Parts: sequence; structure tokens; C-alpha cells
Amino acid sequence: MSSSDIFIGEIIGTAVLILLGGGVVAAVVLKRSKAQNAGWVAITFGWGFAVMTAVYMTGSLSGAHLNPAVTVGIALNNGEWKNVPVYIAGQMLGAMIGAFLVWVAYYGQFQAHLRDPEITSKPVAGAIEGPGPVLGIFSTGPEIRNVWQNLATEIIGTLVLVLAVLTQGLNNDGKGLNVLGGLIVAFVVVGIGLSLGGPTGYAINPARDLGPRIVHALLPLPNKGGSDWGYAWIPVVGPLIGSAAAAGIYSLAFA
Amino acid sequence: MSSSDIFIGEIIGTAVLILLGGGVVAAVVLKRSKAQNAGWVAITFGWGFAVMTAVYMTGSLSGAHLNPAVTVGIALNNGEWKNVPVYIAGQMLGAMIGAFLVWVAYYGQFQAHLRDPEITSKPVAGAIEGPGPVLGIFSTGPEIRNVWQNLATEIIGTLVLVLAVLTQGLNNDGKGLNVLGGLIVAFVVVGIGLSLGGPTGYAINPARDLGPRIVHALLPLPNKGGSDWGYAWIPVVGPLIGSAAAAGIYSLAFA
Amino acid sequence: MSSSDIFIGEIIGTAVLILLGGGVVAAVVLKRSKAQNAGWVAITFGWGFAVMTAVYMTGSLSGAHLNPAVTVGIALNNGEWKNVPVYIAGQMLGAMIGAFLVWVAYYGQFQAHLRDPEITSKPVAGAIEGPGPVLGIFSTGPEIRNVWQNLATEIIGTLVLVLAVLTQGLNNDGKGLNVLGGLIVAFVVVGIGLSLGGPTGYAINPARDLGPRIVHALLPLPNKGGSDWGYAWIPVVGPLIGSAAAAGIYSLAFA
Amino acid sequence: MSSSDIFIGEIIGTAVLILLGGGVVAAVVLKRSKAQNAGWVAITFGWGFAVMTAVYMTGSLSGAHLNPAVTVGIALNNGEWKNVPVYIAGQMLGAMIGAFLVWVAYYGQFQAHLRDPEITSKPVAGAIEGPGPVLGIFSTGPEIRNVWQNLATEIIGTLVLVLAVLTQGLNNDGKGLNVLGGLIVAFVVVGIGLSLGGPTGYAINPARDLGPRIVHALLPLPNKGGSDWGYAWIPVVGPLIGSAAAAGIYSLAFA
Repeated sequence: MSSSDIFIGEIIGTAVLILLGGGVVAAVVLKRSKAQNAGWVAITFGWGFAVMTAVYMTGSLSGAHLNPAVTVGIALNNGEWKNVPVYIAGQMLGAMIGAFLVWVAYYGQFQAHLRDPEITSKPVAGAIEGPGPVLGIFSTGPEIRNVWQNLATEIIGTLVLVLAVLTQGLNNDGKGLNVLGGLIVAFVVVGIGLSLGGPTGYAINPARDLGPRIVHALLPLPNKGGSDWGYAWIPVVGPLIGSAAAAGIYSLAFA
Repeated sequence: MSSSDIFIGEIIGTAVLILLGGGVVAAVVLKRSKAQNAGWVAITFGWGFAVMTAVYMTGSLSGAHLNPAVTVGIALNNGEWKNVPVYIAGQMLGAMIGAFLVWVAYYGQFQAHLRDPEITSKPVAGAIEGPGPVLGIFSTGPEIRNVWQNLATEIIGTLVLVLAVLTQGLNNDGKGLNVLGGLIVAFVVVGIGLSLGGPTGYAINPARDLGPRIVHALLPLPNKGGSDWGYAWIPVVGPLIGSAAAAGIYSLAFA
Repeated sequence: MSSSDIFIGEIIGTAVLILLGGGVVAAVVLKRSKAQNAGWVAITFGWGFAVMTAVYMTGSLSGAHLNPAVTVGIALNNGEWKNVPVYIAGQMLGAMIGAFLVWVAYYGQFQAHLRDPEITSKPVAGAIEGPGPVLGIFSTGPEIRNVWQNLATEIIGTLVLVLAVLTQGLNNDGKGLNVLGGLIVAFVVVGIGLSLGGPTGYAINPARDLGPRIVHALLPLPNKGGSDWGYAWIPVVGPLIGSAAAAGIYSLAFA
Repeated sequence: MSSSDIFIGEIIGTAVLILLGGGVVAAVVLKRSKAQNAGWVAITFGWGFAVMTAVYMTGSLSGAHLNPAVTVGIALNNGEWKNVPVYIAGQMLGAMIGAFLVWVAYYGQFQAHLRDPEITSKPVAGAIEGPGPVLGIFSTGPEIRNVWQNLATEIIGTLVLVLAVLTQGLNNDGKGLNVLGGLIVAFVVVGIGLSLGGPTGYAINPARDLGPRIVHALLPLPNKGGSDWGYAWIPVVGPLIGSAAAAGIYSLAFA
């Protein structure tokens, strides 16, 4: 794989991941969406199929990491760090493009939602420094603010994800996921969402959280509230620790 | 593939697609259906399995495009336009047959629903020129009427669909989808529905929208209301633009 | 395949099909079940995974028809009628065993439900000759009683099922379903349930309906009400007509 | 497979199984979880994807039995008992680690839930000797206490599971599940949950129930109530009987 294929593959793949992943949260949360209140099953399957779609689309181009925690876990495992910055740059850029496209696709719904005083006057659950009423479409946030628990939940969730990727040998042949692998990774992500998403909303991916948070800060949304920067380091650091733990367990028990 | 196989395959496949796709909306919307109020998860999986069933049934006959946007995207990619009119004619005819069969299967439910004054006296959400209370079983419509947003949402959704089809190399070998491919395309469609269906109901297929809209206009349904022809061009033009965008991205980044 | 393998395979497979299929309806309907009110998505996926489990379990033994409509459709297609009575006998016996096991597994829930006067004093939706309050766990019934529509809905649903089976070449090689095929057939059944189950509850299988109806008539359930024998011919005749229609379309368009 | 690979594989696999399986119950049950009240479909799919994730992760190490009933069923079938104690020891230890990790991931939610007097003052459904308000996150319990029915339901559910495993030849080649097999076993488990989980919560696995019950007894949870030891033998004995029944049917009908 050339660096440019990796860069383009990760941009397209992560953009599709966040477009569909952020999109399902918009669909379930926003006023005047046909899917409003479709519930947690819709959100977790929506994120899973977002992963699946992006993996099959870009697996042949970049291996479809789509996640700095996956990239770092694979590099810790095989010792090849040369392309890591290219991967992460593509993932961050793709995540921002995806979040922007969610805003385009749900433009009218964002306007209707954020101009409803019933919605924007209520404090948001878990608010300390003012996460806005639509921040959850872009980034994750905890139901209960507790640095150690929030970090632990992100570590555990990412550990499961990266260990699943490594043990399936899905990415470390350098050629991307095999055909069935994309479906299985998708359902692993649905499973992590259903089972470990309750406390923090399962970022398990630094680019998935940080990229859209930047877009939330930049977009001209009315009454959007804060971007909760005080929490922003947890869905970056937690997944990276989880990834390192997965690589350690993998080399001890499986390699 | 002979032209007659393509024509027959697309008629049967698109008829099954619309029978099951329109059927799940009828099941969830209509009075005295066992599935009434089964929700958005039921609708999106119902459409996904409709795609899956039709693809496996007719893949060997016509390649199972089932969608003018897919046909045009593949033709833009491989330059073969000879069979495009046959594909689209089969898709339109099949879509109309499927919509007619939904009416047969739910005949009593349509009657009960449309003769309930509580239902037919209420204005329909998003109504301007009078979409009827059961039009959503046949065709899509926006929650918020905004030409540019509605068009953008259909373009983005179709772009994801057609790029997923092209990058999987599922159709462009001229022999139809492989066995696993039909399942993956089905879940891509579920994902697009969950994530991008909120604003317009995700036509992402001109035949899926226009064919059943014609049937809605023709059927002798009591109190059926208008067929919302003012909106009808958006789910035709949007998917075709999205398809062209997908073919362009494919040739730049993947080919 | 020997006749005894076919007989045993169809008994075990259809017993598992009805145990899990009737079981999910019991789980969702009965008082004091953890799954009470889990909804239509639970019911349709429950039936789909019932098909999947039974197909993988008994495919190598009997080909896993599990349904007289499938058996007849295959015989109409390949002209081999010799084993048809063995298949159907096994399917009927298996269906009765499965329905009996549902009663064992949900024994206390049946008792609690049927001894609740709030439940047993209410007329059942669509009742004419008195379908009992738990008959729906055993057999199907229409929401709106209309012979022609009820028959049409069962014909259309079975046509889709049998045409899907025939076109995938899943059963007609005489060796049972391939590995992926069982999953796809399962999702075809989920799709038919979601999309065409609203009016009649999608029997699409004479043994699935008639066998458990006999068990309902025989079991010593308190206040169980009638077994609705007046309707019993429709889920037998409708699927057989649908199966013949599928075989006809298959021989005209696909063979 | 070496004994140490089996031991480590079963520890990791069963820990992941219980982390995700117990996790989804915590997610749906506990206060201040984003998934609260997500329902029975979420729980059953969460357990299914827990099985799938664990199977693909550890199949190459230990064959991914993850369940003493599966281990015993396979040993009854192939006569190899040497590694059975290693399997079961790993499963019990893994189940306890998994239950502990659920507590870590949902620490704040457990605290909030158990300190809410509205919750802890209410008697728990089916309570005789005081199952606590969060015991269901760790272990199973019956809706209606009836030794014979509860035992029968666990026997029937495990019979289906172990017969599905044996007939697919998934584990008895000594090399673990094949790639597609893990997905199918996952959906078999979802199916058993949807269809047979209503009365007892479908342990169908002695380690899945007993290991976490021990952890519930040991954890310093406020107001946690009893661990319902009077019921604890049923989800051990029932699955073992079901496993023996499956092995018997397998050797009579399939071998």
C-alpha cells in the first residue's frame, strides 16, 4: 500500500464511518426526523453498519483501520510505525468531513431542534461545563462524570475491539480485512455498543470523538452550547491505553 | 446476460424489493396490522432484507441492480450503456408490480385505515400539496420541505450506496452479486436507512419512488389524498446525481 | 438420503423450528415472561433464527425442508415425489413435538396468563368463532377475517419464500443447504415476517400452523378457548398455492 | 492444543463473554446508563454478539467452548475427558473476571442505582430468599419459581445449543470454530434467548451463572441484597442434563 492510498482510503473510510455513525445519532435525537426516538438498538446497529460499510469500501485501499487505536495496536504488534502518522492524519480529516456531512444531511432538523426553546433551555444530563444539546451527535460524553470510571470504560471497550481485530488477523497482513471480517468487526462494534456503551457512549476511537468535536466547535449552529473540551482528552487517552493493553495481551497469550 | 434475462430479472427482483419494502411500511403504519407501531428498526431491517431477498433471487439472471442509480453508476464506470434502458424499464415495471402486490396483501388494512375519520381528517406532517395518509407506503417524502436539503440528503445516501456497490466489485463483473455480497449490500441499505433516512425517508433509488407513486395515483383507494407530484423529481434527480458522484470518486480514488 | 434420515431429520428440524418459533411468541405474549411486550422485531427475528438453527442442525440429514410448501415446491421443480409423504409426515410430527415443548418451557407462564380474568374475559381481536387468548402461540390468525385477502397474503408470502429457496439452488441438489444459505434463508423469513406478516401472522408453512393447532386442541390448558378450526384451511391451502406459483415462475423465468 | 493454551483461551474468552453479556444487562437495567430500558432485543443481541466476539477471539487458542455444557457435550461425544477440568477451570475463572470488569465499567451506575431508595426498597419479582436488585446483571433467576419448570426450561435451551454445536461439527474437530460458525452460533444464542429466555433468563451455561454469582456475593456493593443461592444449582444442573441429552440425540440420530 502506498502512502497516498492509505491517506485517501482512511479519509474516505472514516468520513463514511462518521457520516453514518453521527447520522444515526442525529436521526434518533433530532426533532422532525422520521427516526426520532428509535432507541439504543437503532444507534448501536447504525454504528455497526457504519463500520461495516466503511471497511468494505476502503479495505483494499488502506486496510480500513479507521481508528488511531487500531492503527497503534497493529503498529505495537508488528513494529511498523512508518505509516502511522499518515493513517492518523487521514482518520482525523475523514472524521471531520463525515461530521460536516451529517450537518448537511440533517440541516433542517438541526435548525428546528436548536430553535425549540423547550430543548435548548433544559440543562443537559451530566453537564458541568455546558455540553450543548446536539453535542452527542458529534462526540461522546459521560452520563456520570468520573475521570477514573470514564477512562476505565473506554479502556475496556477499546481493549475488546483491538484484541478482536488482532486475534482475527484481520488487519495485520497489510492487505485489509477479508470479506467476512468486515461483517464480524461490525457486530463486535454493535456488541461493544450494546454492552459497554451505557456509561460514556463508547468512543473507543480517538478520531471518531476528537474530529467531530472540532467540527461542532466550528459549525454555525444556533444555541449549540459548549463542546465540552474538559472531557475531550478521555476518549483520546482511554482508547490508546486500551489499544496498548490489547497489544500486550495479544503478544503474551496469542502470538 | 441476454436482454430478456435482464428485463425479466429486474422485473422480478424489483417487484420483490418493493413488495417487501413497501410491505414493511404498510405493516408498521396501517391500522389492524399485527406489526403496527413496530418502529423504525423494523422498517429499516425490512427494507434491508427486501434488498437481500431480491438480490439473491435475481442476481444470476440480471445482476440484480434493482435501482437505476446502481445501473447508471455501473455504466458510468464501465462505459457500457447498451442495456441501461432495459434495466430501467424492468425496474420501473417491477416497482409498479410490487406496489400493487402490497395493496393486495394489505387490502383490508388499507380499507380500515382510510375509512377511519380520525386518520383521514388529520393533516399529514410536512404536507403542502396534500400527500395522502398512506402515500408513505408507496413513496418517500420529506419531514421538512427544503429542496436543497432534501436533494442533498438523497445525493449523500445514494453516493454511499453506489460507492459501496462499486468498491466491492459486486456488480461490475457483469455476473451479479456473489453470495456474501447480497448480505453486505442489505446491511449497507439498513445502515443508510438508520443513519440518513431521518429527513426524507431514503429513496436512494428513482424506480423505488416513482413506480409506486404512479401506482398510488392509479389505485382506487378511498380518501387516499394527493400523490405529492411536486416532490416526485427529488427522489429521481438526487439519486442520479449521487450515483454520478460515486462513479467519479470511484474512478479517481479506487480504479 | 435414506427415508429414515429424512424422517428423523424433518422431525428434529421442525420440532426445533416450532419450539423456538412458538417460543418467541410465548415469550412476548405471556404474563410473567421476561420478554413480555418485546415487540414485533423480537418475534420476527425469533422465527428467523428458529429457521436458521433448524436448518444448520438437520441440513445434512434431510435437506432441512421443514415446510410442506418447500417440499412440494422442490418436487414440482425436480419431479421427484417419492419422499414427499415422508417429508410431510416428519414435518407434522415435528411441529407437534415442538409445540408441546413450548408448553413445557412456558408451563407456569401459561397457567398465570390463562388464570388472569382480565385476560381471559376479553374478546380476542378478529374473533368470530372464538380463537383463544393463547392460540396465537400455536397457530396464526387474521387481524381482519377476509378469506380472499387472507389467502392472497399467504400465497404471496409463500411465493417469495419458495422462489428464494429455488433460485438459490439451496435444496434442489438433494444435499441440504450450504453453510451461508441457512443464514440467508433465515433473513428471508425475517423479511417476510416484517413485511407481509401484518395481516395474517405469516404461516407460509402448512405444518407450522396445523401441527401446533392440533396440539392446542389437545393440551389441558385452562380457559384456552377455541382452536379456530374455521380458519385452519387457509394457512394450509394458501402456502401450497404459493408454492406452486413459485415453481411455475421458476420454471418459466429461471430454469 | 496445549493445556495452557486451553486454559488461557477459555479464561480470556469467557471473560469477554461475561463482560459483554453481563454488560448489556447492566446497560439496560441500571440508572444513568444511556441504554436504560433498551429492552429484550438489546439484551439478546448483546449476549449473542458477546458469544461471537469471544468465539472469534479465542477459537484458535482453545476451541472457544466458553461453557461447561459445551465441553461436556463434546467430551460425551468424542470420549476425550482429559482436558475437561482445564476447560471448566478456565471458564469459571474467566466468568469471574468478566463479572468483575462489568462492575468496573459500570461503577458509577451501580452506585447510583443501589443508592436510590425507590429501587432498593421494592421487592424483586420472583423473590423468595431475597435476590438483590442487581443480581440479574450477574446471574439468572426465574420469573416464576418452580423447580421442575425452571429445570426443564434450562434443559431444553441447552439441548438446542449443544445439539446445534455438535451438528455443525464446529468444535469436535479439536481446532475451534470455523469463520462462519462463530456468527451462526451467535445467532443460535440470540434465538434461544428470544424464544426460551422468558421464564428463567436462559443461563444455558453453568459457568456463566455460577461464576458471576460468586462475584456478586464478594463485591462491596451497597444494598445489594442476597445472591439467591437456593436457585444456584438449577442453572448448573439443568444445562448439564441438557448437554447429555444433546449428546445422546446426536449419537442416535446424526453420528
